[in-house]
Formats: sequence, structure tokens, C-alpha cells
Amino acid sequence: MTSSSVCVLGLGLIGGSILRAAHDAGRPVWGWNRSADAIAGATADGYDVGTDLKAALTRASDQDALIVVAVPMPAVDSVLAAIAEHAPAAPITDVVSVKAEVAAAVTARGLQARYVGGHPMAGTNQSGWSATDPTLFTDAVWVVSTDRGVDADVWVRVAQLALDCGSVVVPAESVEHDRAVARISHLPHLLAEALAMVGAAGGPLALGLAAGSFRDGTRVASSSPNLVRAMTEGNAAALRTALDEALAALTAAREELDEGSTKTLVDAGNAARLQYEQHQRFEITDITPGEPGWREELQDAGRRGGVVRQIRSASPG
Amino acid sequence: MTSSSVCVLGLGLIGGSILRAAHDAGRPVWGWNRSADAIAGATADGYDVGTDLKAALTRASDQDALIVVAVPMPAVDSVLAAIAEHAPAAPITDVVSVKAEVAAAVTARGLQARYVGGHPMAGTNQSGWSATDPTLFTDAVWVVSTDRGVDADVWVRVAQLALDCGSVVVPAESVEHDRAVARISHLPHLLAEALAMVGAAGGPLALGLAAGSFRDGTRVASSSPNLVRAMTEGNAAALRTALDEALAALTAAREELDEGSTKTLVDAGNAARLQYEQHQRFEITDITPGEPGWREELQDAGRRGGVVRQIRSASPG
Repeated sequence: MTSSSVCVLGLGLIGGSILRAAHDAGRPVWGWNRSADAIAGATADGYDVGTDLKAALTRASDQDALIVVAVPMPAVDSVLAAIAEHAPAAPITDVVSVKAEVAAAVTARGLQARYVGGHPMAGTNQSGWSATDPTLFTDAVWVVSTDRGVDADVWVRVAQLALDCGSVVVPAESVEHDRAVARISHLPHLLAEALAMVGAAGGPLALGLAAGSFRDGTRVASSSPNLVRAMTEGNAAALRTALDEALAALTAAREELDEGSTKTLVDAGNAARLQYEQHQRFEITDITPGEPGWREELQDAGRRGGVVRQIRSASPG
Repeated sequence: MTSSSVCVLGLGLIGGSILRAAHDAGRPVWGWNRSADAIAGATADGYDVGTDLKAALTRASDQDALIVVAVPMPAVDSVLAAIAEHAPAAPITDVVSVKAEVAAAVTARGLQARYVGGHPMAGTNQSGWSATDPTLFTDAVWVVSTDRGVDADVWVRVAQLALDCGSVVVPAESVEHDRAVARISHLPHLLAEALAMVGAAGGPLALGLAAGSFRDGTRVASSSPNLVRAMTEGNAAALRTALDEALAALTAAREELDEGSTKTLVDAGNAARLQYEQHQRFEITDITPGEPGWREELQDAGRRGGVVRQIRSASPG
């Protein structure tokens, strides 16, 4: 029987919320964090957490726990080095918002055989233990990697953790994930920053007149600059493409505005927003991880809007 | 004694909501709308509305009612022509989202002596009588024009209507208003349209991964293209400046991204958003419309973030 234990490394908003959600789902779970101060609240709340990385990983190795790497990108490699030393055979996932860069770091440490990347698409505006929430992932989308070479058993364990946390699973290749989030998560940050700048340049009169469109359009500009830089800079290649597309649309609009019209941009933007509003997920029900072609089939279904809500067992039936 | 009657021309979301809010404030109010179909709901709800423009204006003239022009920009001039014919001495305001263009049309009809422009900064995503709401303006900001030549008595009547509808009044010159709303209302629409386009170009995978930042960043792209075009095209000159600033910030960010950094944009955008969050209005309490210099003083106070919450009487005491 597969171990249901979970070992969470890094107890910020995402890692801490996974610790709590996995606990609430009845799974044995423990966590590690570099700083003791940051997890005083977790300790006080009775969670099984500590600052001894070797101890956490040795236990993960002994219990065949799923290791969840939930530290910021700059700290990922040092955590992977510790995993390679103390729990080289344990299954590994992560929750970093870019996937290709993490996959490359995992491969560089020789851990790729037991690694399946993940990315829960859940809020990151706040931070720290006090902001953690076991329901953060409820009805959220959790990307689970379908990169060439992923192990079906590890894939199922990562997907099951996402489902246990209340999410639906979107299967996607790391590179495709990174291109998609550049469009729908990283570009929104850059546009929000630019909008905030132009608004504030209008002084107190402009800021005083700002209503819903400015408030919503700049909301994510209140995110910590360090978090935003880590996300956007970690996905620079894909983000360049998305930003170039936005610049092309806005530059064309600027030219049309010289003729007094905004028709092309407004019509296309409205149609695109309706496409988003009408987007329907479908449930992937006919693919069993481990069976021939499962990885490519999942990836193709994810690309077409498919999500996994329940893991199909590879056992006959 | 000044008449408290109000005559609302055009009963869409804004005009209809003013009709209802003024009624709830205990003011005699009637409305006109070009199409009978659109106000069947208003009639059924017992409001005093009709489709006879001459009758509505004659009554306004007889009762010295404040006329509120609440039709879309393209229909403004024909309504002004009717006012010039049937109620040339009545005080006039409007609620169109651009101010300089309306002021010019008013002057062209020779109605400028009794006109004070207005703009309630309240939502326009929905439309029609069923969307009207007497609380739409509660705690909203309502710009009242301080253009050269405005009449103090009319200014007070327009400001009082805004206060009766639950808003605070921001005094501002038409041109300054238009520059400010280009930054905080019209530019957000253009950026939202562009973001929606880039997101949808990522197909079902990207749309399926879209979470809060994309949803909020594209929200106003769901507004009716006709409304968005009317707003943005009606304010083309000021919007060009705002769009150029956004393009400059994003183009610089694109270059910095080639070096792998987003620091300049992210730091500046975050600081700007904090400026917005920390923006504090102050109440203008020491200016009495009609006293020497009142117009320039109000305008200056509005520019610095001042709002009027109560009208000071010009009578001694």
C-alpha cells in the first residue's frame, strides 16, 4: 500500500496551507521551515513542524512520504540538495509558480525519476503562517506536470494530494504551463503595475476619482515586489512573448486612437473576455495513469480544458 | 426659494438611478426617455416618466427644475437643442463621463450660463431600468464642474443633487476631469481589453488556469463595447497621453526583462498602488459658492484631494 504521509518543506502561505489541508484530509503530515520564528504559530496550533531539515527528510525517507517543496525559487536548489542526500528515493513534488526552471534544477540534482511538478493556482497576496488557510485550494486549479519521463505512481500521488486539498487537477507539460501562466498570471501583474503608475501620476485628483476599474485593475500591484519579481523573472522567456503581444495590441490601439477610434481593441478584448467567461472545463474520466499513452493523453486533454476530479485506479475493474 | 424639482432626460442605468435616488430623497422628480419600451419597468414601478420631451421640458421650465442630461454622448446635442427651445432658462447639468466635449456642445447651443457639468463615478457594467439602483451613488464621488463662468447658484443646485443621491462632490475643471479619468477609468479599460486578448490567445489551457489576477484584470472588458468606445473615444486626447505613459512603462519593462529583471516596473507600480491605497480625501469646509474667488478655491481644493460633503449657504451667519 502507498504511504499517505506528506512532508512539506517551507511553511509560507502555500506550504502552510497544504500542511493544514492535508492534516484536515486525515493524512499524516509534518513540515519543515528554515526560520523558527515564522512557524511559532504553527507550533502553537499543534502542528508537527520543526527546523531540522535532515530529520524531516530522514522521516520522509523512512515512511515513503510525498515531499512537497514549497520554498521560494531561490531556495529550491539547496532544498533539493538536502533531498538528494537524505531522501533520494522519496517521491517529490513542488508548488513553485514556474515549472520548467524547477524541473531543470531537479534534473541537475539527479532526482527527476521521482519528481512530478505541481502548481496550485491559489492566492499569494498575503504571506506567513497567519495567512494560511486549509480551504485555500478548495475548487482551485492545481497543475500536475505531464513532462516526458514522469512516473505514473508518483503522478497519482501528487494528483491525489491536490484532490485531497479540494482542488481539481489540470495535467500540463512544464513548458506549456509556463507559457499559459505568463498570459493569465504574470502579464496581469505587469499591466497592474503600469496602470498604478499612470494613475498615481495624475495626483490626488485622479486617485480621488478612481473607482472600481482602477481598483480591480491595480489590485495585484499591492503584492510584495519580491514575490512578483520572483514569479515574473522566473518565467522571463514566456513572459516576453505575452508582453510583446500586449504591447502589439496596445500600440495598434494607440495608432487607431489617433483616428479617434478604439474599435479594434475594444471589440477583440470584449470577445476574448466572453471566451473566458464561457470557458467550460470538462472532466477527464477515461485515462488511467500507467496505461499505455496515459501521459500524452492526459496532456492533450489538459490542453483542451480537461480536469481530473478523481484518480482512476490502474488495477483491473 | 429654490425649486427642488428634478427633470431627468434619459433613463438608462445612471439616469434611472438618479430618478430613483432623487425620489427617495423626497424631491419632486420626473423623467423622459426616447424609447417607451425601455421605461415600461419605470412606469410599472409608479415613476413619473414619459416619452414626450417637449412636455417634460415645458414642465421643467415652469417649475424651474434642475435638468439632468443623462443620454449617451451621441444623443446629447439633440437633447440640448430641445432644451434651448423649451426650457432655455432652466438650470442644466449632465452625467456624461467626459466633460469638455459636453461643455463645448452646451456653449454651441448658447446654454452655458445655466450649465454646470457633472459626472458621478459609479458603475456602468450593466444597463437598463432593471439595473437601476437608488443606492448606486451612495459614497460615490460625483465631479461637479468649476469651469470659468459657472453660476454659483446652479453649482449649488447640482452639488446638492449629488449630495442628495448620497455622493461626495469633487470640484474640478472639465479638462482636468477628463485628464484624470483617462488615467483611472479609460486606460483601465484599454489594458483590460489587451489582457483579455493575450489570455484568450493561450487557448483553453490558459483560460482554465486563469484565477483572480486575470479575472480582476479583465473584468471591465465585459462592459458593452459601445459604452467603452463612447467613453474612450470621447476622451481621445487625454487618453492618448495616459496610454503613451503606460506604453513607455511597459516598453521599458520589456527591455529590462531581456536582462531578466522586472525590478523598475514592479517597484514603481507597487509604490504607486500604495499611494492609491493611502490616498485620503479631506473635507472642504471653508469655501462658500458665490463669495469672491469661490470657483478657483474649490478647484484648487479638488485638485489636492478635497471633497464637499455639505453645501455652505451664502446667507450670513
